[in-house]
Amino acid sequence: MIKAGLGFNREMKICITHMHGDHILGLPGLIQTMSLLCRTRTLEIYGPAGLGDFIEAIEKTIKFTLTFRLEVIEIEDEGLVCAEDEYEIIAARADHVAPAFAYSLEEKSRPGKFYPEKAKALGIPEGVAWAKLQHGTTVKLPNGRVVEPQEVLGPPRSGRKISYSGDSRFSEALVKLAKNADLLIHDCTFDDGLAKRAAEDGHSIPSQVAKTAKKANVKRVILTHISARYKTPNLLLNQTRKGFINAVVAEDFMKIDLPLHDVK
Amino acid sequence: MIKAGLGFNREMKICITHMHGDHILGLPGLIQTMSLLCRTRTLEIYGPAGLGDFIEAIEKTIKFTLTFRLEVIEIEDEGLVCAEDEYEIIAARADHVAPAFAYSLEEKSRPGKFYPEKAKALGIPEGVAWAKLQHGTTVKLPNGRVVEPQEVLGPPRSGRKISYSGDSRFSEALVKLAKNADLLIHDCTFDDGLAKRAAEDGHSIPSQVAKTAKKANVKRVILTHISARYKTPNLLLNQTRKGFINAVVAEDFMKIDLPLHDVK
Repeated sequence: MIKAGLGFNREMKICITHMHGDHILGLPGLIQTMSLLCRTRTLEIYGPAGLGDFIEAIEKTIKFTLTFRLEVIEIEDEGLVCAEDEYEIIAARADHVAPAFAYSLEEKSRPGKFYPEKAKALGIPEGVAWAKLQHGTTVKLPNGRVVEPQEVLGPPRSGRKISYSGDSRFSEALVKLAKNADLLIHDCTFDDGLAKRAAEDGHSIPSQVAKTAKKANVKRVILTHISARYKTPNLLLNQTRKGFINAVVAEDFMKIDLPLHDVK
Repeated sequence: MIKAGLGFNREMKICITHMHGDHILGLPGLIQTMSLLCRTRTLEIYGPAGLGDFIEAIEKTIKFTLTFRLEVIEIEDEGLVCAEDEYEIIAARADHVAPAFAYSLEEKSRPGKFYPEKAKALGIPEGVAWAKLQHGTTVKLPNGRVVEPQEVLGPPRSGRKISYSGDSRFSEALVKLAKNADLLIHDCTFDDGLAKRAAEDGHSIPSQVAKTAKKANVKRVILTHISARYKTPNLLLNQTRKGFINAVVAEDFMKIDLPLHDVK
């Protein structure tokens, strides 16, 4: 995060998928680093049962005093995790060897495209009234006429959506969670030749990731959690692309542009 | 450790200086990684009071099952931490804002240099007998004469010694611990201009590191725990070198050769 130039005091929520070491042991150091860098904003951390005990045990045994408030929220079931003005986070149960959640971040819709020619035709004076309409607010003209935003705007533009599987076998719950996502970040631990091992360990293989991506109608897939046995991830990538072409492999400091949705 | 090509199953002990996050929070992930890589050898971890509770709390809350035995030993006082055939580890109290230990690793002496001409003069047949004498074992010749190793060897060659301060203010206990060390790795968090801040936070400044190095008569110093405020460590290095020339700054993957001690 430091190398990527992400601020440590920005609004931020952390979602933990499950309580396995490779998914949770980085958290205490991250929290402490934020404190050393004098974070002041409250930090919300969501995750499965056990998260609270873990954080509390660390706080107690190494006695760290934080510069900010930590709010640990244990998720009990699938569904809405939190709702903000601009986005929501939704959880679904993943299918792993431990209780695990997958998450979607869904932006709320933006008002539709603004058509200046329609505004002019209605005699709306350029300036504040236009801005209000562009942001979806009703306007009253000097002549008493009330203009609704939809008279000068196109249809609302849907928000973007990112889904993250965490560690999981193929699961219809994930297909549902990732429905129409712009981006699906998915466990792809083993190759198709190790289907049995993947099933035992609660992980996915490329053909399953492709199946989820296709069924969920996502735009792009990023493969992650690749087993260290693979010197290069090419085998996994090629196997995925047989069923779903728009796939890449996660890399440190990878940057992905997710364009805003425009009117069709 | 992976990048450095160090094996995860080798004989190894871990010494924790104190229970602050930046010195302890990497430990659980390291342990878990060793387990994922199927370590089988027992791992001993030494550290101050609280270490056991910390490890236990992590084990309990994230339920990790290890492939090897973990032996956590809380050090209660200064002195011998452990003794192996080839080396000893000694602890001294550091002077920090939390209970903290500094450590020395001291190799045991090696037998002295072997003089073949002396062996020949004594009529010792080349082969097994020479090898035994070289390793410090008494040998009985066919003619009944018993040869002591010191008859054919120079004086014992002292082992090497590495000392590590952990986080600490200047302290006579550290001077004593580091006496004649080949290498002293020392806290150098702040520059000499921030002496007050260093004292408050329980850290050292360059002039203090130099003082310790000089008083302890160490051969080399590596400065570590440099505050992130310094874009480059040059200021700290230059200030240290004013009082002790043989100093460098720690870097990831730094390699230091410590030559064996030879006869004077």
